[in-house]
Amino acid sequence: MTANFVNHDANVIYLDGNSLGRLPAGAAAELQRTVEVEWGGELIDAWEHWIDEPLRLGDRLATVFLGAEPSSVVLADSTSVNFFKLAAAALDSRPDRRALVTDRHNFPTDRYILEGLALARGLEIRWVDVDPLYGPVASDLAQVLDDEVSLVTFSHVAYRSAAIADMAAINGAARAAGAMNLWDLSHSVGAIPIELAANGVDLAVGCTYKYLNGGPGSPAFLYVAPRLHQQLIQPVWGWFGQQNQFAMGQGYQPQNDIRRFLAGTPPIIALAATRAGIESLARIGMPALRRRSVALTERLIELAEARLFPLGFSLGSPREPELRGGHVLLRHPQARAISVGLRRQEQVIGDFREPDGLRLAPVAAYTTDAEVDEAVDRIHRHVATGAFEEYRDAGNRVT
Amino acid sequence: MTANFVNHDANVIYLDGNSLGRLPAGAAAELQRTVEVEWGGELIDAWEHWIDEPLRLGDRLATVFLGAEPSSVVLADSTSVNFFKLAAAALDSRPDRRALVTDRHNFPTDRYILEGLALARGLEIRWVDVDPLYGPVASDLAQVLDDEVSLVTFSHVAYRSAAIADMAAINGAARAAGAMNLWDLSHSVGAIPIELAANGVDLAVGCTYKYLNGGPGSPAFLYVAPRLHQQLIQPVWGWFGQQNQFAMGQGYQPQNDIRRFLAGTPPIIALAATRAGIESLARIGMPALRRRSVALTERLIELAEARLFPLGFSLGSPREPELRGGHVLLRHPQARAISVGLRRQEQVIGDFREPDGLRLAPVAAYTTDAEVDEAVDRIHRHVATGAFEEYRDAGNRVT
Repeated sequence: MTANFVNHDANVIYLDGNSLGRLPAGAAAELQRTVEVEWGGELIDAWEHWIDEPLRLGDRLATVFLGAEPSSVVLADSTSVNFFKLAAAALDSRPDRRALVTDRHNFPTDRYILEGLALARGLEIRWVDVDPLYGPVASDLAQVLDDEVSLVTFSHVAYRSAAIADMAAINGAARAAGAMNLWDLSHSVGAIPIELAANGVDLAVGCTYKYLNGGPGSPAFLYVAPRLHQQLIQPVWGWFGQQNQFAMGQGYQPQNDIRRFLAGTPPIIALAATRAGIESLARIGMPALRRRSVALTERLIELAEARLFPLGFSLGSPREPELRGGHVLLRHPQARAISVGLRRQEQVIGDFREPDGLRLAPVAAYTTDAEVDEAVDRIHRHVATGAFEEYRDAGNRVT
Repeated sequence: MTANFVNHDANVIYLDGNSLGRLPAGAAAELQRTVEVEWGGELIDAWEHWIDEPLRLGDRLATVFLGAEPSSVVLADSTSVNFFKLAAAALDSRPDRRALVTDRHNFPTDRYILEGLALARGLEIRWVDVDPLYGPVASDLAQVLDDEVSLVTFSHVAYRSAAIADMAAINGAARAAGAMNLWDLSHSVGAIPIELAANGVDLAVGCTYKYLNGGPGSPAFLYVAPRLHQQLIQPVWGWFGQQNQFAMGQGYQPQNDIRRFLAGTPPIIALAATRAGIESLARIGMPALRRRSVALTERLIELAEARLFPLGFSLGSPREPELRGGHVLLRHPQARAISVGLRRQEQVIGDFREPDGLRLAPVAAYTTDAEVDEAVDRIHRHVATGAFEEYRDAGNRVT
């Protein structure tokens, strides 16, 4: 499973795939072809096929990773912009309702965007109290759901704990109250199987630079259930959402399909790299990826329990594999210093996450058992010897 | 001046630079390095320098092309999304005013986005009657400007006629009425000198895939005058606009500088190609580019007057070079069929623009005098022989 990704330095143990997946071996060639043959050679004529790329790649995601209907997914913009567009569309579809629901542990960009939307519309945000380890569950919603709520939105896999939310149950509770649901799949897509259609998902967004290996800042995706395509209007009325776009006529008339959720010109160069990532993963397939991912995270947790917990670590992720996504959070009071020290001295690359988490993602597509074993050896050495102490004043890091 | 761009087929006369600039010779190498060395080799650590790229490239644009202050420009998102963010910020800064001003000849995505913003806020759009050939002038504004107007927004160079708007005069009129100004520079940046600071521009956006040769769907830019950085809030509260972003804390607190106008994760791969385009043009410099551009468009117009006007063409662009941007609109009742026929039979690549325009952009950075001469020869042959007649039912084309 490891042959299709670039690895320049076998001594680096890269467990940060959940922030930036490795470079697929085919990405450089995809970029080269798109640039040299298409841009350089076909010039403007290449738009005849480029224009369908957001939808074509969206269909690949829908089929292979998302359990979604054809023509229900497009790639475009950033996760933040897509989240803004879909959350706004949902809120504006129920203008008589004055509240929305999310949780304080949700990914920051989602929380911030909701704050902006709520302030602009005079809405109340009802912050659900969720278990930081297990994430939102339907029973958490009982106290906040009523006929004032227009939107319920959570991350599918929690960015810290990796807890998998119960989509079907939460969507059922939201629907019973007449609210729409919107899921952020950034930390689940490519890591665990997703069934958007079967679970009654209304709206979803996600990024492609983590487990889908699309490259730094690669275009994000959005999903809208086909039954909602005609009902919802997103607020960024760009020309790629317009019917007969190249007539350049007067008056915005949104497309009748998923393309009404596009805005500006699609990022063709970036999509070429993203395509390489998506196809690398598609060749393995989601069932095999998930089996391998569970084996890797189980291996990591078992080794951590035996060798790292005696050094003060504890598990910040669900112990049950069926409740856990593709990464593992190990908690330690000195996690920040340990995270920096591991990078500098041990070439073990993970993330620090506030307040006390070392986030490690052994990635199904390319992490080996030997790397997991070696990583635990190095973490043990680094902490047991107190080497991390010299990094106590280190700053935070980019995700 | 032509050595730095890829040209696979010397028989193709590419006058569509205004829709998609040619591939810079250095773009493939920039992409290769970014992908292989940075993404593949530095992995997540590369974010230590990637994170500054939107601002670093913005500073290059500010200095070389925009006459703008340091730290006043960032590259991110599409032109449509940037226009949405800045127009919304301007409108929301004057909530007591109920109108905005633009013109029916403005670029479609700008018009559509304004319609969406106006509807959501219950604002009136005052559509200025402008001369389709010469674009908006300050005297057009006299009838519509009053203390109800929050925003005045136009394209700097008209996408059809290439008319250059008088920024300073229009900004002066807008300011006298207490309105903000917002300029779309998509069709001017890299084609004509721009002096944002000296002309009292408040806000501007633009694309980088035309005269800046950034590649299909390359990241757009936005400008906010430094005096406004602290006053304006844009509506997409993504995590890249947040202070201490990686603390991932509670509550959106926008950055105190231009970065508050960012939203999601910057598109690093796409920015690598854009950097190649910007630096290719920067090596020539804006004064030389403009001199060469004027020589080329004058040559094209003079030849057209002599040889094509007798065939029914007329000029849809200002005749005075100081009022004209980098492209030329030739009008003809059969312009649509001629545009398609020229591509299919003569390998002369321009754009059709409604209702009767053949848009041709001889580009300073790479179009030769001989290509202009040969293009007019081929257009003459195509129209004089009636060859275009077989394309009367041809559809529209992608820009």
